[in-house]
Amino acid sequence: MAKEVTPRSENYSLWYNDIVLKANLAENSAVRGCMVIKPYGYAIWEKMQRTLDQMFKDTGHENAYFPVFIPKSFLSKEAAHVEGFAKECAVVTHYRLKNDPNGKGVVVDPEAKLEEELIVRPTSETIIWNTYKNWIQSYRDLPILVNQWANVVRWEMRTRLFLRTAEFLWQEGHTAHATSQEALEETERMINVYADFAENWMGVPVTIGRKSPSERFAGAVETYTIEAMMQDGKALQSGTSHFLGQNFAKAFDVQFTNKEGKLDYVWATSWGVSTRLMGALIMSHSDDNGLVLPPKLAPIQVVMVPIYKGAEELASISGKLKEIKKQLEAKGISVKLDDRDNFKPGFKFAEYELKGVPVRVAMGPRDFQNGTIEIARRDTLEKQSLSQEGIAEYIEQLLTDIQQNIYNKALARRKEMTTKVDSYDEFKRLLDEKGGFFLCHWDGTAETEELIKEETKATIRCIPLDGEMEEGKCMVTGKPSKQRVIIARSY
Amino acid sequence: MAKEVTPRSENYSLWYNDIVLKANLAENSAVRGCMVIKPYGYAIWEKMQRTLDQMFKDTGHENAYFPVFIPKSFLSKEAAHVEGFAKECAVVTHYRLKNDPNGKGVVVDPEAKLEEELIVRPTSETIIWNTYKNWIQSYRDLPILVNQWANVVRWEMRTRLFLRTAEFLWQEGHTAHATSQEALEETERMINVYADFAENWMGVPVTIGRKSPSERFAGAVETYTIEAMMQDGKALQSGTSHFLGQNFAKAFDVQFTNKEGKLDYVWATSWGVSTRLMGALIMSHSDDNGLVLPPKLAPIQVVMVPIYKGAEELASISGKLKEIKKQLEAKGISVKLDDRDNFKPGFKFAEYELKGVPVRVAMGPRDFQNGTIEIARRDTLEKQSLSQEGIAEYIEQLLTDIQQNIYNKALARRKEMTTKVDSYDEFKRLLDEKGGFFLCHWDGTAETEELIKEETKATIRCIPLDGEMEEGKCMVTGKPSKQRVIIARSY
Ligand SMILES: [Zn+2]
Ligand SMILES: [Zn+2]
Repeated sequence: MAKEVTPRSENYSLWYNDIVLKANLAENSAVRGCMVIKPYGYAIWEKMQRTLDQMFKDTGHENAYFPVFIPKSFLSKEAAHVEGFAKECAVVTHYRLKNDPNGKGVVVDPEAKLEEELIVRPTSETIIWNTYKNWIQSYRDLPILVNQWANVVRWEMRTRLFLRTAEFLWQEGHTAHATSQEALEETERMINVYADFAENWMGVPVTIGRKSPSERFAGAVETYTIEAMMQDGKALQSGTSHFLGQNFAKAFDVQFTNKEGKLDYVWATSWGVSTRLMGALIMSHSDDNGLVLPPKLAPIQVVMVPIYKGAEELASISGKLKEIKKQLEAKGISVKLDDRDNFKPGFKFAEYELKGVPVRVAMGPRDFQNGTIEIARRDTLEKQSLSQEGIAEYIEQLLTDIQQNIYNKALARRKEMTTKVDSYDEFKRLLDEKGGFFLCHWDGTAETEELIKEETKATIRCIPLDGEMEEGKCMVTGKPSKQRVIIARSY
Repeated sequence: MAKEVTPRSENYSLWYNDIVLKANLAENSAVRGCMVIKPYGYAIWEKMQRTLDQMFKDTGHENAYFPVFIPKSFLSKEAAHVEGFAKECAVVTHYRLKNDPNGKGVVVDPEAKLEEELIVRPTSETIIWNTYKNWIQSYRDLPILVNQWANVVRWEMRTRLFLRTAEFLWQEGHTAHATSQEALEETERMINVYADFAENWMGVPVTIGRKSPSERFAGAVETYTIEAMMQDGKALQSGTSHFLGQNFAKAFDVQFTNKEGKLDYVWATSWGVSTRLMGALIMSHSDDNGLVLPPKLAPIQVVMVPIYKGAEELASISGKLKEIKKQLEAKGISVKLDDRDNFKPGFKFAEYELKGVPVRVAMGPRDFQNGTIEIARRDTLEKQSLSQEGIAEYIEQLLTDIQQNIYNKALARRKEMTTKVDSYDEFKRLLDEKGGFFLCHWDGTAETEELIKEETKATIRCIPLDGEMEEGKCMVTGKPSKQRVIIARSY
């Protein structure tokens, strides 16, 4: 079974797909647009989930679970929300099947039609705010800091594994607050949690910024985003946090008695990341040999491959490797010893390279005799022969170095692929020739934004939060601007 | 807000519902039959999930994720399965909504009708075996040991929180094997994992047994079950593990080349537990004061309540409590210090009693001066005043004792409520007068089973695996029987 990956230079999109399929991360299912997340892919997602979940708990949040179905009428209660979400979605109309009277199989029972159709949740603001209505009477019931891990469905015509699928897994935080100020702080807190996770766990540098009004979440007053740059220079929106104002409280009539004894509407936020992060992870670090994983999220951090002839050599080499394995595991490092007999070392090397295992350890009979060991790192593909003495400490440090190195590499690429431009013509030329992120002045109007999008397929990714306040002129209209925004093509 | 719980003796069913609602475990949602699992309830479920997940991993399983939708035609591929599952289910027929041309809101877009309807998964054998088909060519690809944590939907007309809901959360293991023997071993391994979890974590004694043919999972060759007895004597099926033979492999044409180079169909198992376990947990241990939780699954194991007047007393008492809290947390015990100022100690005591927190610690000014502390255990409601000296060790041991005690109590109840009967008349009389489990001889026929069910509403819960082989005569027909079975009314 040849598992070769299409080189990025040949076809970037095929390269991505090859990695997802050949590293056994996910595959398409029999249901159009829905993916199967395979065990190795799921193990990575699980590591992401556990880490994020702890970060949410550390910032005071609790998990809960709300229904997968939303009554159709709920979607129309918030005016902007219905425009954004009541479009492409899975609609449940019946609740029973029956045997086909005309032959084999089953058919929908026409008598089991629902009075009101149910929508498979595309996001849960509506059902959750309808629930919060009963949880909130007074300021003493606030804040509510709840998160949900769930599957959601948004019918998509063109799908790509992890990046855009009809069903995906995500978490959605939904919080309720007594003041606008507190809700705004929460919105910012959570986008910072996402940025922390992206940078320090995924090794993916991100820019935190506000979305332009036309790119906001449907029903939000303000949307914060983290934007990451993929290897092809395109942006990938990796997480969003929304300040919802009192929009959903008003739509679902959620009022509370404040400290002054007056009735007021509750303030809301929502924030989410999804299995899309898997796409960001894959496209940020991988190479033409396959997946490259940051050690902190790798299900297997170190793989050990014995090189031997016969049972005797295997026994002595494996014995030594098991000793080192124990030392590594005592340090909390996950290790796999692959002593399968029916595969050759070269085959195994290629397999773990494809799967992105950060460190590979190999030991042959000569190593065994000399007290040496071969260490290969996945990120740089460098190999070294080292003494077995103190090797566990060496590998522990190496994992830290790899984590840092892949972040640095992505950071350097982003720097190199970020360009300040002041002329629209230059922007258009460089967008095609070089790609990447462009720091441009924009006049703040939806018209200009729309024009750029139509003419170049690039969009305003965000208005960076830490961007310097620099006066300038819109590169398209020449109208005044106070700050550069990031414009790029995106996933 | 009065939070009184209806006593069991008054109305057992209302008692259960009161606990679920008033201990903030779950509530009904706006979607018929679907529940909202509230943060405190979800925290318990999460502890169950984490524990089970580790047990699955320790027995060699990996997690994966399969689509929430199943093409309608898949359900009919396995003859028995379609009878069991293609009945009451949520059917997706359309994939788009549009603005209502005649007014407000949204309507289903008739042009967006799916060619083939999709069923929201009631269980995933069909979609998974359709996937495994592509994963399995040779014996080298086996076994596949995969588990999925997911939501499933079975349309139910009469629902009860946790016990029977249209949507519920569960895990479903789906394994593929090269031999019948190996699949059978897996089936038994997993029912033993469930029994271990029920007894040693939930504190719920269970009987492991085989289901009678008519009670088997639709599509299974053999179904193992764990049956628990609730406080009203009724049985609750708490987990099942199915040996599926080659039924699904044949339905989805999944063949493999065995070691001898011959083609054969793959052998299968599936096994699952759900949020129904929450119902079993609640009904096993709780009392008329509210929930009683086994310490191993309690989100808060110890709650601390300072009793004070004024900021000064609060500061000194809280200071001391925080010291003890640290010591407890160093032992891995979860502790909540409730120093809220706007609630009185008595109110807090009632609240944590209702929520089933295993140990309550209270300290007043006199305790502070005398170096004492008050310890109350939830299971027996006993209170003691103890020296602060060595209190962390005392509490650690107390939690172990409570865990053991609630198991022992449930075990004693089951013993006392299990009756051997040999006459059908006596059975019917005792079933109404005493209730509980009945050990009876049964002739093994579906006719007798059906008769018992129709006449008494009791069913054969299982044929116990560790039941002694005792010759006897069926209590209904007098025909020969080799072993007693458990008959009971059930949830
Ligand atoms: Zn929708
Ligand atoms: Zn069904």
